[in-house]
Amino acid sequence: MDIFDAINNRTSYRGKYKDIPVPKADLIKILEAGTAAPSGCNKQTTSFIAVDDKRLLAEVKALIDPPIAVTAPAFILVLTQKIYAYRDKCFNIQDYSAAIENMLLAIKGLGYESCWYEGHITDDDDIAGKIAHHMGIPDEYRIVCILPVGIPEEEPKKTSKQPFESRIWFNGFGGNK
Amino acid sequence: MDIFDAINNRTSYRGKYKDIPVPKADLIKILEAGTAAPSGCNKQTTSFIAVDDKRLLAEVKALIDPPIAVTAPAFILVLTQKIYAYRDKCFNIQDYSAAIENMLLAIKGLGYESCWYEGHITDDDDIAGKIAHHMGIPDEYRIVCILPVGIPEEEPKKTSKQPFESRIWFNGFGGNK
Repeated sequence: MDIFDAINNRTSYRGKYKDIPVPKADLIKILEAGTAAPSGCNKQTTSFIAVDDKRLLAEVKALIDPPIAVTAPAFILVLTQKIYAYRDKCFNIQDYSAAIENMLLAIKGLGYESCWYEGHITDDDDIAGKIAHHMGIPDEYRIVCILPVGIPEEEPKKTSKQPFESRIWFNGFGGNK
Repeated sequence: MDIFDAINNRTSYRGKYKDIPVPKADLIKILEAGTAAPSGCNKQTTSFIAVDDKRLLAEVKALIDPPIAVTAPAFILVLTQKIYAYRDKCFNIQDYSAAIENMLLAIKGLGYESCWYEGHITDDDDIAGKIAHHMGIPDEYRIVCILPVGIPEEEPKKTSKQPFESRIWFNGFGGNK
């Protein structure tokens, strides 16, 4: 798929998924896209766990309340480590966000859909922490996002955006000079 | 360009640029890619200023010490607003990082090179603040990143990465089950 088609057609899909597994080769391409993202001072603070084992996936889904993507045949868990780039500077949020965006585009490029679930699992009820505990993930790693992966059952809907001229300007603030 | 070629060949280019302007139509495609990125609760906290006016670009470059991308024919300034998604939760870092990654891929897709300059300008000497002051950018917007855009004079070099198995796992932490 052309890069601009992937960028411009990607959307946050919250519908049902078809009951068709995602081949491991596709998951690997998606995960490799995540690792290909840049990271501050190349610290590579982001790691990834793909969950496609039916039993484990069901256990993980059971920990998410309210539930998300219950029909998705695979989840990618995005993990971050607070590794400092230099002095007191840490770019781990930037790092994992760039990795997530790469994976969302790769998912789209392979004909799947997904959605960036972050606040829902990192919020005060700490669903991410419960999943990490269940899976025995060491304390120095934190789950920050879940990306479901699967073939959509429904038509993805585009999100409405502000008009171009309210966010993009040339050679000065607030005008198109 | 295919999405996977863009993702896998993108790299942080710190070499010289050719003295060839970037057509406005290309800058618009790149900036639109930025706005196409997802944002937490669709708050669209990221804005963009493209600088390709020779005089303004020279003024901006003169504020950056040590200098970066001195030969680039255009800069994209990435601006963020701290708009809350809900309660005390704000995803503006995630939002601008996804937008930057989209733009880096769009830049690559159009045959240009770039580099994500963030820490250098947002650090304690606050180069970003000086640029914002010089350009009269309102206080509620903060410049967080500069992306140079141009045709590379030198061959881009790939960054070395950790091996796949140290960052990617299946159905559990730290193993490939």
